[in-house]
Amino acid sequence: MPDILIKNGRILTPKGFVEKSLLIEDGIITSIGGKDVAEYVIDAKGNIVMPGLINAHTHLGMTLFRGYADDLPLKEWLTEHIWPIEARLTDDDVYAGTLLGCLEMIKSGTTAFADMYIRMDGAAKAVEASGLRGALSYGMIELGDEEKGEKELKIGKEFVKKWNGASNGRITAMYGPHAPNTCSPEFLAHVREQADEDGVGIHIHVSETKAEVDQIKAQYDMSPVKLLDDIGFLRHDVLAAHCVWLSPEDIHTLKKGNVKIAHNPTSNMKLASGVAPIPELLEDGVTVGLGTDGCASNNTLDMFHEMKMAALLHKVHKLDPTVIPMQKALEMATVDGALSLGLDTGVIAEGKKADIIIVDINKPHLTPKHDLVSHLVYCAKGSDVSTTIVDGKILMEDYEVKIFDEAEIMARAEERAKDLMGR
Amino acid sequence: MPDILIKNGRILTPKGFVEKSLLIEDGIITSIGGKDVAEYVIDAKGNIVMPGLINAHTHLGMTLFRGYADDLPLKEWLTEHIWPIEARLTDDDVYAGTLLGCLEMIKSGTTAFADMYIRMDGAAKAVEASGLRGALSYGMIELGDEEKGEKELKIGKEFVKKWNGASNGRITAMYGPHAPNTCSPEFLAHVREQADEDGVGIHIHVSETKAEVDQIKAQYDMSPVKLLDDIGFLRHDVLAAHCVWLSPEDIHTLKKGNVKIAHNPTSNMKLASGVAPIPELLEDGVTVGLGTDGCASNNTLDMFHEMKMAALLHKVHKLDPTVIPMQKALEMATVDGALSLGLDTGVIAEGKKADIIIVDINKPHLTPKHDLVSHLVYCAKGSDVSTTIVDGKILMEDYEVKIFDEAEIMARAEERAKDLMGR
Repeated sequence: MPDILIKNGRILTPKGFVEKSLLIEDGIITSIGGKDVAEYVIDAKGNIVMPGLINAHTHLGMTLFRGYADDLPLKEWLTEHIWPIEARLTDDDVYAGTLLGCLEMIKSGTTAFADMYIRMDGAAKAVEASGLRGALSYGMIELGDEEKGEKELKIGKEFVKKWNGASNGRITAMYGPHAPNTCSPEFLAHVREQADEDGVGIHIHVSETKAEVDQIKAQYDMSPVKLLDDIGFLRHDVLAAHCVWLSPEDIHTLKKGNVKIAHNPTSNMKLASGVAPIPELLEDGVTVGLGTDGCASNNTLDMFHEMKMAALLHKVHKLDPTVIPMQKALEMATVDGALSLGLDTGVIAEGKKADIIIVDINKPHLTPKHDLVSHLVYCAKGSDVSTTIVDGKILMEDYEVKIFDEAEIMARAEERAKDLMGR
Repeated sequence: MPDILIKNGRILTPKGFVEKSLLIEDGIITSIGGKDVAEYVIDAKGNIVMPGLINAHTHLGMTLFRGYADDLPLKEWLTEHIWPIEARLTDDDVYAGTLLGCLEMIKSGTTAFADMYIRMDGAAKAVEASGLRGALSYGMIELGDEEKGEKELKIGKEFVKKWNGASNGRITAMYGPHAPNTCSPEFLAHVREQADEDGVGIHIHVSETKAEVDQIKAQYDMSPVKLLDDIGFLRHDVLAAHCVWLSPEDIHTLKKGNVKIAHNPTSNMKLASGVAPIPELLEDGVTVGLGTDGCASNNTLDMFHEMKMAALLHKVHKLDPTVIPMQKALEMATVDGALSLGLDTGVIAEGKKADIIIVDINKPHLTPKHDLVSHLVYCAKGSDVSTTIVDGKILMEDYEVKIFDEAEIMARAEERAKDLMGR
C-alpha cells in the first residue's frame, strides 16, 4: 500500500479547518502540515478533507428491500412483508445486499458502520471485499425459547470467533441480541457473559417503540433500560440503537453505564416510532452516534442526510432552533460514532487511522462559503463526496470507485432482489 | 426552438409509469407514444421522465445568505443577522443570489417556483436569463404606516406591470404582502383590490409562528386566517405560505376560500416554527404545494429533499406511518404545486407545457427497483437529475448546464456575498 499525501485540502480537525498537507503512512495519519512528499499524491483542490462518516446502526442486508414496502403500519410491515422475505434470504442474498450497501456508503462518504443482521458470513465477506470498516453482529432472536437461544448464541459465537479482527482489524465482531422484547433476561445475561469472555461489544435495539416499552412493563413491571441494568447488561461496550422511549431515570441509567446510543432520526420518523430524547441524553453527557437503520426504513444510507435530520428533528420537536447545533450533529456522525463503535477513527489527527473523505464543495448548493460546517450538515449530500479512503486505502477517488466494479454490484443486487421476490 | 423527442424513458404519467416516446413541439407536450421523430432526440436510457418539480415558496435572493447564520433564536436571527444584511442588498446582489438559486434548481430538477423578495427587478432578470418558470412577487411590508404602504404598493404595482407575462409567459407576477402581522388589514384589503384589478394572484406568509398568531389575536381578537377572511382576502388565487398554527376553523376557512397552501417542512423544522396540520388540510381537500423557503432557513433548494421531509415529518408527529404516503408527497411537489401557482404544468400529458426532468436511476442508492415512486420520494436527490427542460427548452442535458455558464454564476455569487458581508 503506497503512502498517500493529500494536498491543498481544507482539513477538518478538532480545532477547526486548517489548510495543510496530510500524510498517510501504513494506514495511519502520520503528519498534518509536516512532510509533504509521498508515493501517491491526491490534490484536494481546496475541497474539504474530513473524517469519514460513521453509521452507528444499520442492517445492510436489507438494502435489497429498498422501496419494497413503505408507508405501512409497523406490524403489517413486519409480519406481512419483511419477515416473510427475510425467511427466504440466503447467504448470497445477504452478500449481494451488503455489497450494494457498502458501495452506496463508499460513494456517500461513510467509512465505518455497525451492522446487525442474519446470514452474517455473507455480510462479512462483502465487508471484506469492500474495504470498509464494519462492526458486525449476528442478530439473535430467542423469544424465551431456551433451545432456540442456544442455537442462536452458537451462531453468534462462531461469527465472533471467525470474524473478529479480520481484514487487518477492519472487521470487528459484536454480539447482537435483537432487543429486550425478543430476548429473555436470562438469554441477555448469557450474552453479556459471553461478550465479556470474548472481549467484544454488544449491539442491541432498546426502547424503539412505545409498544415494546409497554410490553416489557406489562411483563416485568419496569422499563427495558431498567431490566437491562438489573441484569448487569449495561456497560461501556453496549451500543443501544434507537432509545426513543426513555424516562429521565432511563437516561440516568444509560449515562451511569456509559452506554453508547445509536440515534436513527430518519427511521424513527418514517416508521413513526417517535422522537428520541437526544437533547436530554446529550445534556447528561451520554455519547450518541448516528445511524441510518436499514434501507427498508429510510430508504438510503446517506449519513449527510442523517446529520441534517438529527439537527432538524429536535428543533421542531422542542420548538427551539438552538437545539442540536450543527457542530454537534457533525460530531455525532464522526467522533461520537467512533466512540460508539470503539474505533480509533472519527477525527483527523496524527496517529489516528486514516479513514478520510474529501467533500467537493465546488457546487452551486454549497455556494457561497460563509460557513463550511453549516454546509456539511445542512447542504452537503452523499453525492458531494469525491474521494473515500479507509485504513489508508483509496476506495473511491475523484468519484470513481476503485475497490470493485460498481455496475457488477448493482446488477447482482438487482438480480438477487428479483429472484428473492419470485421465490 | 427545435422539437424534441425523448425516447426510452419510463414516463411518470397520472396513471403511473409508461414506457413510450414523448414529443415536445413549440414548448408543448404534443404526443406520448405517438409520432417518434423530431429534430432533436434525447435518449433517456430507461431513466425516469417526469414533471419538473415545483417549489411553491422561496426567497431566491437569500441564496447569498446560505450558511451565514444558523441555529439561532428566530428574533436574534432576523434582527441581528438577516435584516441588517437585507438592508444593504442591491439589485445586483439579488440578481446574483437569484441566479445562483436558479442554477441550483436547474441542477436539482425544479422547473418552476414562487418567489417573494425585495429588489425584484434583479430577481426577474435572473429568472429571465435562467429559462425557469417563476411566479414572482415583491414582498411588501407596511407595518400600519399608510405612507409606507403607498410606497410599497407602488413598487408592487410597477413590478406586476413590468413583468407579468414576460419571457413568453415564463414569468408571472403576484402581489406579495408579507404577512398579516407586518401588514395592516386596511393595507391587505387594498392589495386584494389591486390584485383583482390586475388579474394576478397573491403570495403571503400566514400563521408561520405561534408568536405571529398570538400577536394577531392580542390585536384583533381573532386568528390571522379569520382576519384575512373577514376582509374578503381569501380566494382561489391566494398562495398562503406555512400555515403552521391553524385551528380546525381556520382549516375550514382556507378550504372554503379555495386558498392554496405552500408547506415548507424543512424550514419549519430548522426555525422550530412547528408542524403544520397538513394531514388535516389534505383531509379537507385543500390543495397543498411544497416549498423550500429561502436558503437561510433550509439551507438548500432541493425539492427531492422536501418531498421526503413532507412524507417523514407528519408520520412521526402523528405517530402514524401511513400519514402523507409517498404518492401524495410526489403530487404535492408536482401537480398540486402547479395548481398552487396557477400553472399549466405539473403533469405529463398531451397539451401540457413541457416542463420535464429526467431522473437518472442507474445508481446504487436507487437499486434495486422495487418501486420507483418510493425511490423518487425516499431515495432520490437533486443530484440524480440529469436533464431539465422548461417551456420546451433544454436547460441542462446529461448533467451539463446549457443555459448559462455555471462557474461564472458561482463565482459572481461568491464575490457578491463576500462584498455584502464587508459592506
